[in-house]
Amino acid sequence: MGIIAGSGAIPALLIDKLRHCHHTAVVVAAHVGEADPKLTQLADAIEWVRLGQFKRILRFFHAQGVTHIVMVGGITKTQIWNIRPDTLALKIATRLKHMQDDHLLRAIAETLEERGFVVCGAHELAPELLAPVGILGHHRPNSELWQDMRLGWQMAKAIGALDIGQGVVVRERVVLAVEAVEGTDAMLQRAGKLSRGGGCLVKVSKPQQDLRLDMPTIGVATIQNLHRAGLRGLAVESGSTLIVDYIGMLAEADRLGIVVVGCDAAQMTDNMGREGPL
Amino acid sequence: MGIIAGSGAIPALLIDKLRHCHHTAVVVAAHVGEADPKLTQLADAIEWVRLGQFKRILRFFHAQGVTHIVMVGGITKTQIWNIRPDTLALKIATRLKHMQDDHLLRAIAETLEERGFVVCGAHELAPELLAPVGILGHHRPNSELWQDMRLGWQMAKAIGALDIGQGVVVRERVVLAVEAVEGTDAMLQRAGKLSRGGGCLVKVSKPQQDLRLDMPTIGVATIQNLHRAGLRGLAVESGSTLIVDYIGMLAEADRLGIVVVGCDAAQMTDNMGREGPL
Repeated sequence: MGIIAGSGAIPALLIDKLRHCHHTAVVVAAHVGEADPKLTQLADAIEWVRLGQFKRILRFFHAQGVTHIVMVGGITKTQIWNIRPDTLALKIATRLKHMQDDHLLRAIAETLEERGFVVCGAHELAPELLAPVGILGHHRPNSELWQDMRLGWQMAKAIGALDIGQGVVVRERVVLAVEAVEGTDAMLQRAGKLSRGGGCLVKVSKPQQDLRLDMPTIGVATIQNLHRAGLRGLAVESGSTLIVDYIGMLAEADRLGIVVVGCDAAQMTDNMGREGPL
Repeated sequence: MGIIAGSGAIPALLIDKLRHCHHTAVVVAAHVGEADPKLTQLADAIEWVRLGQFKRILRFFHAQGVTHIVMVGGITKTQIWNIRPDTLALKIATRLKHMQDDHLLRAIAETLEERGFVVCGAHELAPELLAPVGILGHHRPNSELWQDMRLGWQMAKAIGALDIGQGVVVRERVVLAVEAVEGTDAMLQRAGKLSRGGGCLVKVSKPQQDLRLDMPTIGVATIQNLHRAGLRGLAVESGSTLIVDYIGMLAEADRLGIVVVGCDAAQMTDNMGREGPL
């Protein structure tokens, strides 16, 4: 099993799961400056690469006898302009109509598949990381917050369909902020300055998103950032959001009074959902 | 003629035009903290009001014999939560499904019309303030910048259709930033930090926008903010963008190397536009 690793805790969690539950050897191509240095201890073999060294990754995986590949963890989007692409990365780039994430990731996956690899999603290998449906912590949304979550859902899905980003902040039925390249944390900071408190963050997968390639991820830090920005709720898409440290995240949400809802796509677009989640 | 005035230079320009070309008396309801204090000298009669004092505005206009009303100038969107609405403003608010700009402004216009006023647009009274079609300054877009402008146009129109905002920043075919409540200047600052330079700001009217009520406005400061953010181009919608100090703005754009294009809606959605503007 080969992992192409970016930042965050998911790569380490996945290596652990693969080794101890699936009893597989885990070979990691880790991005310098993004991936956790600890991965060196966890992986059976590791190669540290820079963004754009695509040939090097494939050579390494071939040499290690890898057949299945997972891409997990974040890549700072602003790094995209510091890329030094090799010839294979350039070949991928020429496939693109525009440089939006989605197109880029899909072109990478297609290239991997053409070369005989099977591309898997982290959620297929570790489904316990997925957000479940329902009110996840102790705090329940009031009808006002629930309305904001519903509006945010529609807006975030529309923004995702444009391949701009995955998140929006809504307060009192106004879209305060839309996430593009700056990332969720920068958006939350801005929203905190624009609002005198209240409202929610809604994070969803893009309608056309290949969940094997890039999935919204939340954790304890998301809850802390929300709280710092004065927001009261977090709505994510159940079944297509990865949660790092589920128990720890909910404990933090309960402590800080943050409402966390795992939303079901059908419920959010349905009239049935008007009353509240579940 | 009655003017409901927000911030910026347009209210003063309009008063001047109305008095010297149309020879009309100009009565102004000016928003405290938003409108230019100089308006007191320019208007035939002025009443300083706070956001939400809607009844007071109408009483004043009735007393002054006003029949036609123009709403011009900006209202800081973050002020929307500091509003102390009177009973009429509350009545308007209850009409709203959600608090997005568009709905709010339309509800205000409808209320004015129901009470017998004619609502006009600044562009009807002073069409010389509208952005013309074409490359407006000396600098021409190269094909890269033109592609960014075209992508930005599509994205900004889609964002506008969601009633989120009017502007986006695009660089190398990536949407760097989307404008929501923070305003164009805050978005430009953010984009400046995300990008190592290049790219453009695209500002358009929302597809469902009533141009009498709220029109994108640009001027010398827009060019300076663009330049500070390291952007190279500005694309606006011809015929539905107000330009404050056209000559001054283009002089600044020429000096700073900023490309300014007035885009025609048909051209931007057409295949014909693929080659470049005009």
